[in-house]
Amino acid sequence: MLSSAVDHSAATVAEELSDRLRLLHRLKSSRRLSQLLAAPLSDEDQVVQPMDDASPTKWHLAHTTWFYETFLLKPHLPGYREYSPDFAYCFNSYYESHGKRQARNRRGLLTRPSVDEVRGYRAHVDEALERMFVSGFINDGLDGLAAIVELGINHEQQHQELLLTDTLSLFDAQPLHPAYRTPAPCRDQTRHDGDAAFIEFPGGIFPVGFSGTGFCYDNEEPRHDALLQPFRLAHRCVTNAEWLAFMDDGGYRDPLLWLADGWSAINANGWDAPGYWHQRDGVWHQMTLEGLVPVNLAAPVAHVNYYEANAFANWAGKRLPTEFEWEIASTGIAAAGNDLGTGLMRPQPAADGADGELTQMFGDVWEWTSSAYLPYPGYRAAPGALGEYNGKFMVSQNVLRGGSCVTPPGHIRRTYRNFFYPHQRWQFSGVRLAEDAA
Amino acid sequence: MLSSAVDHSAATVAEELSDRLRLLHRLKSSRRLSQLLAAPLSDEDQVVQPMDDASPTKWHLAHTTWFYETFLLKPHLPGYREYSPDFAYCFNSYYESHGKRQARNRRGLLTRPSVDEVRGYRAHVDEALERMFVSGFINDGLDGLAAIVELGINHEQQHQELLLTDTLSLFDAQPLHPAYRTPAPCRDQTRHDGDAAFIEFPGGIFPVGFSGTGFCYDNEEPRHDALLQPFRLAHRCVTNAEWLAFMDDGGYRDPLLWLADGWSAINANGWDAPGYWHQRDGVWHQMTLEGLVPVNLAAPVAHVNYYEANAFANWAGKRLPTEFEWEIASTGIAAAGNDLGTGLMRPQPAADGADGELTQMFGDVWEWTSSAYLPYPGYRAAPGALGEYNGKFMVSQNVLRGGSCVTPPGHIRRTYRNFFYPHQRWQFSGVRLAEDAA
Amino acid sequence: MLSSAVDHSAATVAEELSDRLRLLHRLKSSRRLSQLLAAPLSDEDQVVQPMDDASPTKWHLAHTTWFYETFLLKPHLPGYREYSPDFAYCFNSYYESHGKRQARNRRGLLTRPSVDEVRGYRAHVDEALERMFVSGFINDGLDGLAAIVELGINHEQQHQELLLTDTLSLFDAQPLHPAYRTPAPCRDQTRHDGDAAFIEFPGGIFPVGFSGTGFCYDNEEPRHDALLQPFRLAHRCVTNAEWLAFMDDGGYRDPLLWLADGWSAINANGWDAPGYWHQRDGVWHQMTLEGLVPVNLAAPVAHVNYYEANAFANWAGKRLPTEFEWEIASTGIAAAGNDLGTGLMRPQPAADGADGELTQMFGDVWEWTSSAYLPYPGYRAAPGALGEYNGKFMVSQNVLRGGSCVTPPGHIRRTYRNFFYPHQRWQFSGVRLAEDAA
Amino acid sequence: MLSSAVDHSAATVAEELSDRLRLLHRLKSSRRLSQLLAAPLSDEDQVVQPMDDASPTKWHLAHTTWFYETFLLKPHLPGYREYSPDFAYCFNSYYESHGKRQARNRRGLLTRPSVDEVRGYRAHVDEALERMFVSGFINDGLDGLAAIVELGINHEQQHQELLLTDTLSLFDAQPLHPAYRTPAPCRDQTRHDGDAAFIEFPGGIFPVGFSGTGFCYDNEEPRHDALLQPFRLAHRCVTNAEWLAFMDDGGYRDPLLWLADGWSAINANGWDAPGYWHQRDGVWHQMTLEGLVPVNLAAPVAHVNYYEANAFANWAGKRLPTEFEWEIASTGIAAAGNDLGTGLMRPQPAADGADGELTQMFGDVWEWTSSAYLPYPGYRAAPGALGEYNGKFMVSQNVLRGGSCVTPPGHIRRTYRNFFYPHQRWQFSGVRLAEDAA
Repeated sequence: MLSSAVDHSAATVAEELSDRLRLLHRLKSSRRLSQLLAAPLSDEDQVVQPMDDASPTKWHLAHTTWFYETFLLKPHLPGYREYSPDFAYCFNSYYESHGKRQARNRRGLLTRPSVDEVRGYRAHVDEALERMFVSGFINDGLDGLAAIVELGINHEQQHQELLLTDTLSLFDAQPLHPAYRTPAPCRDQTRHDGDAAFIEFPGGIFPVGFSGTGFCYDNEEPRHDALLQPFRLAHRCVTNAEWLAFMDDGGYRDPLLWLADGWSAINANGWDAPGYWHQRDGVWHQMTLEGLVPVNLAAPVAHVNYYEANAFANWAGKRLPTEFEWEIASTGIAAAGNDLGTGLMRPQPAADGADGELTQMFGDVWEWTSSAYLPYPGYRAAPGALGEYNGKFMVSQNVLRGGSCVTPPGHIRRTYRNFFYPHQRWQFSGVRLAEDAA
Repeated sequence: MLSSAVDHSAATVAEELSDRLRLLHRLKSSRRLSQLLAAPLSDEDQVVQPMDDASPTKWHLAHTTWFYETFLLKPHLPGYREYSPDFAYCFNSYYESHGKRQARNRRGLLTRPSVDEVRGYRAHVDEALERMFVSGFINDGLDGLAAIVELGINHEQQHQELLLTDTLSLFDAQPLHPAYRTPAPCRDQTRHDGDAAFIEFPGGIFPVGFSGTGFCYDNEEPRHDALLQPFRLAHRCVTNAEWLAFMDDGGYRDPLLWLADGWSAINANGWDAPGYWHQRDGVWHQMTLEGLVPVNLAAPVAHVNYYEANAFANWAGKRLPTEFEWEIASTGIAAAGNDLGTGLMRPQPAADGADGELTQMFGDVWEWTSSAYLPYPGYRAAPGALGEYNGKFMVSQNVLRGGSCVTPPGHIRRTYRNFFYPHQRWQFSGVRLAEDAA
Repeated sequence: MLSSAVDHSAATVAEELSDRLRLLHRLKSSRRLSQLLAAPLSDEDQVVQPMDDASPTKWHLAHTTWFYETFLLKPHLPGYREYSPDFAYCFNSYYESHGKRQARNRRGLLTRPSVDEVRGYRAHVDEALERMFVSGFINDGLDGLAAIVELGINHEQQHQELLLTDTLSLFDAQPLHPAYRTPAPCRDQTRHDGDAAFIEFPGGIFPVGFSGTGFCYDNEEPRHDALLQPFRLAHRCVTNAEWLAFMDDGGYRDPLLWLADGWSAINANGWDAPGYWHQRDGVWHQMTLEGLVPVNLAAPVAHVNYYEANAFANWAGKRLPTEFEWEIASTGIAAAGNDLGTGLMRPQPAADGADGELTQMFGDVWEWTSSAYLPYPGYRAAPGALGEYNGKFMVSQNVLRGGSCVTPPGHIRRTYRNFFYPHQRWQFSGVRLAEDAA
Repeated sequence: MLSSAVDHSAATVAEELSDRLRLLHRLKSSRRLSQLLAAPLSDEDQVVQPMDDASPTKWHLAHTTWFYETFLLKPHLPGYREYSPDFAYCFNSYYESHGKRQARNRRGLLTRPSVDEVRGYRAHVDEALERMFVSGFINDGLDGLAAIVELGINHEQQHQELLLTDTLSLFDAQPLHPAYRTPAPCRDQTRHDGDAAFIEFPGGIFPVGFSGTGFCYDNEEPRHDALLQPFRLAHRCVTNAEWLAFMDDGGYRDPLLWLADGWSAINANGWDAPGYWHQRDGVWHQMTLEGLVPVNLAAPVAHVNYYEANAFANWAGKRLPTEFEWEIASTGIAAAGNDLGTGLMRPQPAADGADGELTQMFGDVWEWTSSAYLPYPGYRAAPGALGEYNGKFMVSQNVLRGGSCVTPPGHIRRTYRNFFYPHQRWQFSGVRLAEDAA
């Protein structure tokens, strides 16, 4: 009896150890990935802020590090030496409960601390994090520390995506239109013929929101029932070819297609094409992480905002899906696709699929839904500073689903809710159409 | 057989005639009400625009008249003589399909046409409308003309409410703080002791949206099922006394209570109290249609925006209701209360009610809900220009329910959806708290 | 001896009496003129503010009255009863030393006090002013009171000009383009052939600035010497025909003609023609106090700002005169012309003059000079609140000379210095060219 | 005869050679200085733009190089290979005649070309410039090429000063307040006791503007006569101690001291102290090129704008000098002082001087004059693109004289006219008081 208890205990220890090592491994991979993503960028590229919405690479690198230092190392690692008391001011994002900070639209003024110092900051914190694992502070009964590591990994993944979209914004704002990476071979550009098929889903009451044991954000909970009417969903995203047809048909000039705010926005900004599109000698090009290239007609349109997505749907006689339609339709589909893991970093034409099968649900482009970003029934923000996270943005934004070509692999879920303001379009945001099945 | 057929036909005619006369009567009452509401105002008061959101009284009077001329008289009354070709430019609101128009934020520049000419315009159109009835063009088989009259009446009712809220905005912006009307005796100001009771409602699937035969806006349809969890609703609105407690407790200074956009907004605008509140010798006063008076502690708080409503709910440990919770809870309650029909023109303290009974659901103040203003499943805008109405505003706004103290009687419904941007607070907008019943 | 002394004294008394009555007469005429100018305007016209720079007519009527009440009646008329304590807040313009006031860009919100009340205010103050004369408070040894009356008359004359230019701005901002007055017969429109003659003036040291016994503003003093080089001045102002040639030659599209700030301003505002010019069916019209009429080719161009005046001069290979060149050249020319006294209220084509004679120096249009508006050497602002007048504007503005078609007769002088910012063009501001005679 | 002609010719050749070599030497020194000034800055420091007025260091380095390439190498050096066709777009400043360019307020977005490439650009152009000398293209009879080199050197000197002031602006905008250089020993800080002496100068007619054979800007010409009244000039600049007295006396809170535009500006910006002043624990510090240090009371106040200078003079019962008073008073004083040549890079306390002697006239701080920046009588801009330089800024700015602690040695002259808008204060701009001597 005793021995069996011992055995059991040893197995548990081994398993915990293994969990702990797995977590440490994921943490280190995640930390390394940020640095890999920054590697093609010069120090100069890393310091400049192209617009208020987009932060400098250096800031992303430091802020994700500050997160661990603030929420894990300083409160929980005995004897931890803060890297620099100035950094909290420089690299806090919006945690009001954590004091004053560099204003968001002034993050690009921080030439100091330098990129090199930020690298030093990362090394210092990484070393302490590893020490925390090795010395057993993680998983030694202090509940919740592993959860903070998990949150930190996911937080950094979000900033990895932003690092790439913000760099694209920066490079587009420059006359030289530099490329972040050398062009990769692209999938066949000709497969844009043929209309999207609309796949039907039955109505009913369905559970939505996260369930299970892994990580999720607080805004994916609580799981609850949603009532859906029968609907149909396009089997693929709207392509650049289709978007050009919309443009050619005067889509940007017909006020009846647009929400009133959208009509004001496109006129105030002079928008008559998706973000990063530029005409060169009469041909539409798009700025990509591979530089300025002709628009790939077969690929999904990207960098359209909610107003544009909505106007396109009106023009097409369809509508956008709700976030729950999207979530239910994605049941059983693996949360992977053309994400950052493929290394392509551009939305790709839809692959041939079996009839009646959804494609491009994960990766390629975030898909605008018609759902406002609101708390789920019974939503409660996590307690403390870490809870000052998703809830405070729950107004005036719309939900996007499915991840993009620059979402780190493993980060996305069926229940994942991204959100942006209806005018924003610097993300890889696109459109999948829906319609009532009644 | 024949006679019975004749009888039947005669009865139908009589009924139709009666319907037609009832409609004409309502139309004329509605037209007269606008003029009555404008009567206390000088020509000067009627021309000035206090801010972009609020239109001059004269503009309201003319725009509601332009509506009939454009959608009814010009297309459907043979021989109708347009009053002036210039007026379409001056008094179109936002119908893009009806041509260019005076920009919204420049409506207050229109000293011409004069208030007198607008009166002439109204008389001209009123005469033609009456002729249309008398000559039988309405209800003579041209389907839909009566529906346009009905829409016109409801449209004018909305502008009657705006005429009053916009006048209040104008009068508040002036150093003299003039009164629109002489003070009416107010209900007992002392009954603000005692906390609100929270009344429980069961969950389930409920039909929401308009059904029946009367008028409704397109945004109230189609009727559809909604799934609710059990919830509780406060039996009355939040009072000024409760709002003062929130202020005294530092409610406007604690960022953790606020949505991020709300925190930015109150700081950018220096808001630290509801709209129209002013301190005089250390005492909070509020600007009302009766002039500047001390805050009535027992009355519902008004002129708070969504951000404020949400922050207050957080502070109180409650939440705002969804629009469907509000709609289901109001089942069986007559859509009447302290609306414009009482002539009080100020929110009043809640009357004593039976235990477990909701009060103040209709009238007093519009109640912010946590629901974003979105189309119902299957929503289709009405065809043609008249459909360019509710649908184009379905983004970035929140739904309010229940009407206010300046909503014309008969205008409000259980299914009625009003909507404003989260920062707006020049309407009589207030708060009713809710909580989960789980 | 005694009798002669008595005689002398009586003569002095008579003369003083006569001076006093003359001043009273002028005061009353001036007060009446303001009301005459407002007479064609409805109450609505009088309350609205078309832009920040332009004030409502009612405000002009009240502010000029407040001036007398504040600087004359309240401090110097025993027993004077202030009309209303609120009016100081409403109608102070910019006298920081006289307390808080309605912000300049919010003057158009004041629907109360009404135009009628302002009329009552004027009557109340006029009565008190007359009483002050009759009772001998003016000219009875209280030095300076007559000077304040004189200043008040001149102050009101300035506002009479503004009343008209601000009304023109208001009427231009409206789709109906109403006329302030019925058209007057205009001088021959064909006399715009023939280039302007350039009349030569010698260099030397000349006294500039005001001297003599009448009224002048503090900014015209002290008289001092100025050193001029020989120069030539165009015998008339630049005409609309000449301006059209500038436009046809691409004047608004060639950056090399423009000051850098001017180039920014015309592009930011989309200016490609003088103020109040509108194309109707391919023909340039201009908004005038007589309504929208075809451009009078022979008349002086008006409503151009300093940037435009400067660019035109560059295009013409000339330059603008300095204020002292203008002042010296005007020596011996009577300070009268097509001012408000003619009642034409529009700039008129230059009359034939003798060879070598300047025309249009006074009236028609204010003439931009190249001189910055700066204090004269030894300038001292008058003491007290009245001195808070001209001096505080002595930066970033340019001097204009000569008065316009809406300057009240008797108001202008050779030494008179008007001043506006280089971007402003709602005044009747035009151009006279100059060149070096070397 | 022949031999003497030959001799003469040989001497001329030798002299020309010597001139040419001297010019080349100065050119190379000037080019080297820019790089020395950039040396303490990281690549990150060199790319960021702290505000619209201030350009990145890299941009200064490249723009001064573009100047030579555009105006000298491309038109005049046969076979010159343009470094990159993209650079014209990136590094043109405001030469409208030289095509489109990166907008001024977006210069900080140019992470590419990199600082390294700009170094390559400089080397490429420097090599070509040297070749142009060596091969005899300069001074070989192509009149004007040496003049363009001279202009280029002066142009680069201006940008050297801006490089330092813009870096100071950048470093002040950062929470870490980094130092550009290590602190140098400062002159005695205690010598701020004693009022400034006012030195009298007679009136009369004086020639002003440039004369002589060296270089000057077109705005310093033509030399012409100016008429001055007797005046007095303070022997030194206003000190920080005196400015603190102004602040302590409520100088920033008394509207009567301020120009109307100035009063608006200080209130809109919340200015209550000179630029770069910060309170730390109740003690005023100032951001300098040596970092954030306590205010040096004896040193001249710097980073005050025209409004502040004017208000201070009013408070002190004095006035600012005119630019010609300054110029005449400086007659006979060597154009040198605490300029960049001392390497101190901060304004220094006035040295003891002989009685009746002006100090600090050159170097330390630019001195605001009351003179508007206007063309001199007879001014003509240089022909062609190079003339698009000083003239286009001649409106709404004021003249400053005397150079600052970061003006390159040899750059300043008695007749030198610097100019800034009245609200600007990121330059080392200070105050010397004047008064009438009458």
